[in-house]
Amino acid sequence: MTDRPTAKPQARARNRPTADDYFQGIRDRNLSMLARAFTLVESSSPRHQKVAEELLTRLMPLTGNALRIGITGAPGAGKSTFIEAFGLLLVRQGKRVAVLAVDPSSGVSGGSILGDKTRMTNLSSEKDAFIRPSPSAGTLGGVAHKTRECMLIAEAAGFDVILIETVGVGQSETMVADMTDCFLGLMLPGAGDELQGIKRGLLELVDVIAVNKADGKNKDAAELAARQYHNALDSITGRHFDDAPAILTCSARENLGIDKVWKAIEKRCRLRKDSGDFQRRRQQQNLRWLWSIVEDQLRHVMHTHPAVQAICNDVETNVLDGSMPPAAGARRLFSALNLDSRNL
Amino acid sequence: MTDRPTAKPQARARNRPTADDYFQGIRDRNLSMLARAFTLVESSSPRHQKVAEELLTRLMPLTGNALRIGITGAPGAGKSTFIEAFGLLLVRQGKRVAVLAVDPSSGVSGGSILGDKTRMTNLSSEKDAFIRPSPSAGTLGGVAHKTRECMLIAEAAGFDVILIETVGVGQSETMVADMTDCFLGLMLPGAGDELQGIKRGLLELVDVIAVNKADGKNKDAAELAARQYHNALDSITGRHFDDAPAILTCSARENLGIDKVWKAIEKRCRLRKDSGDFQRRRQQQNLRWLWSIVEDQLRHVMHTHPAVQAICNDVETNVLDGSMPPAAGARRLFSALNLDSRNL
Repeated sequence: MTDRPTAKPQARARNRPTADDYFQGIRDRNLSMLARAFTLVESSSPRHQKVAEELLTRLMPLTGNALRIGITGAPGAGKSTFIEAFGLLLVRQGKRVAVLAVDPSSGVSGGSILGDKTRMTNLSSEKDAFIRPSPSAGTLGGVAHKTRECMLIAEAAGFDVILIETVGVGQSETMVADMTDCFLGLMLPGAGDELQGIKRGLLELVDVIAVNKADGKNKDAAELAARQYHNALDSITGRHFDDAPAILTCSARENLGIDKVWKAIEKRCRLRKDSGDFQRRRQQQNLRWLWSIVEDQLRHVMHTHPAVQAICNDVETNVLDGSMPPAAGARRLFSALNLDSRNL
Repeated sequence: MTDRPTAKPQARARNRPTADDYFQGIRDRNLSMLARAFTLVESSSPRHQKVAEELLTRLMPLTGNALRIGITGAPGAGKSTFIEAFGLLLVRQGKRVAVLAVDPSSGVSGGSILGDKTRMTNLSSEKDAFIRPSPSAGTLGGVAHKTRECMLIAEAAGFDVILIETVGVGQSETMVADMTDCFLGLMLPGAGDELQGIKRGLLELVDVIAVNKADGKNKDAAELAARQYHNALDSITGRHFDDAPAILTCSARENLGIDKVWKAIEKRCRLRKDSGDFQRRRQQQNLRWLWSIVEDQLRHVMHTHPAVQAICNDVETNVLDGSMPPAAGARRLFSALNLDSRNL
């Protein structure tokens, strides 16, 4: 019989892992439980979120011991190939490596360009590596939030290095820089592509710049691009000597210079640890994270609150036809929330 | 006697303009009343805000008839000189021109770099021109909000063209693009400076690019820069033929090509009006404005609410020492607001 009692929905519900099951599994470095915990925190079901919160609270003492590295790069910069080479280098040094992603477009485009594990076949077959595609749910803030929680879970599961990659859509680079200890920008040699990297905002975020594909006939172009980044950094950003990004060339395909990128990242982190910046940075990141969750929730409530929804169409219509100034409309919507307004 | 009864605070208070005084003054194009109305909407006093809201509600039917043009440019691109030449061109065509600014740094740096009317002496002495520095209060969102209200007031006072300039700090360019009909990027000739413009984000916002300072020995460099922007636009942004920015050179100092910039802006606006995009764009801008005010208010309440402040230190401490996951802390802060949470 296929319809055995244990297969009933009710029985299955009873077999769902509890927060304690997850906790034990993660502490014991059980990779299938790790994957299920990622799915749990990414779920938007209130019941799952409750279990996730309990799990995270219990896991907190086990977190914080990994090095958190953000990686960005324009499409075509060879990010997958680089991460595979970089991850394998670390695995061979005896480290356990988790790869997460923040790709706000993955929900929109249907298939996540970061979701394809097969693009890192060598790394994903290593027992000490774990690759997780980007959560595809909702806003960039939501995606970043869930990725941060996955990062904590991976740390509790004993991973030594967490790589968080992003495609650099919208503010995703800023968000990844704000959840990592060190931020690597992967660039391409050559003029047209090189321009992609000259976003002042990005140059203010990165700690290490690696011009990839520095092999064969691209070698000279890569060296040239590295020099151009050097000049651009001097003229565009106001970053000073100690804080200026390291600029390197490498070839992930030929496995050249990958160790130098790692050494540059290690050096930056060591300097930050020595100065106390490393810990301060993480604390500030946690505080900003805390408040960004609160703000996301407020925004959500604002848009879904029944009293707001009841008048929302009227207000929007009046604002659209120009009979109500937006500030007056905003005051009406805001009052509908009926916030306890003593002292406001 | 200097201490005459009418000078008493109470009497002075009675002499403060009412919403109706402001309304009449603005409708009659009284420039000193216009300046006072700008100060009124920029005030953070609840009493002033109440008058401002009443005033704006009454003025709404008189708004919407100006062309709203955003102007950005790196420091040194000659923005003041350009705006003066551009404004004078329009004034000589019989148009009335108001210049407003969004400069989120003006509060921080003390003296606003946009606040100095003396830098546009010729334009500011024209009776058909009005120059107003950036509001210096608070967040970028707050500055942008007040600038939008000033724009509506200027429209009600019969100005035909509103120029809104920004220095491009943080997200200010995005905000100015979102309150105008057409967005102009002022660029510099020459390699180092030319890089400043190659921010993909900016290239996605601008409708017209003008490489300024195309005079004397810079002429060739300006033409070259214009070609480079052309190439960069092709390779970097996905903007198509009809929507691709016009790229021109000009010299504000020598008053060369300024009319071409105006023609390019006019053409872009005419195309948008013909297609209906012009009106749709303004409607979408108004809706986003409405909700952004609501979100700003929510954020403000969140940070100042007594019940949140009462537990805020504890929660932050627990998050910082790692004993509480940020999501759990956020839930505690959020519950303190005691929002009516049926249906949430």
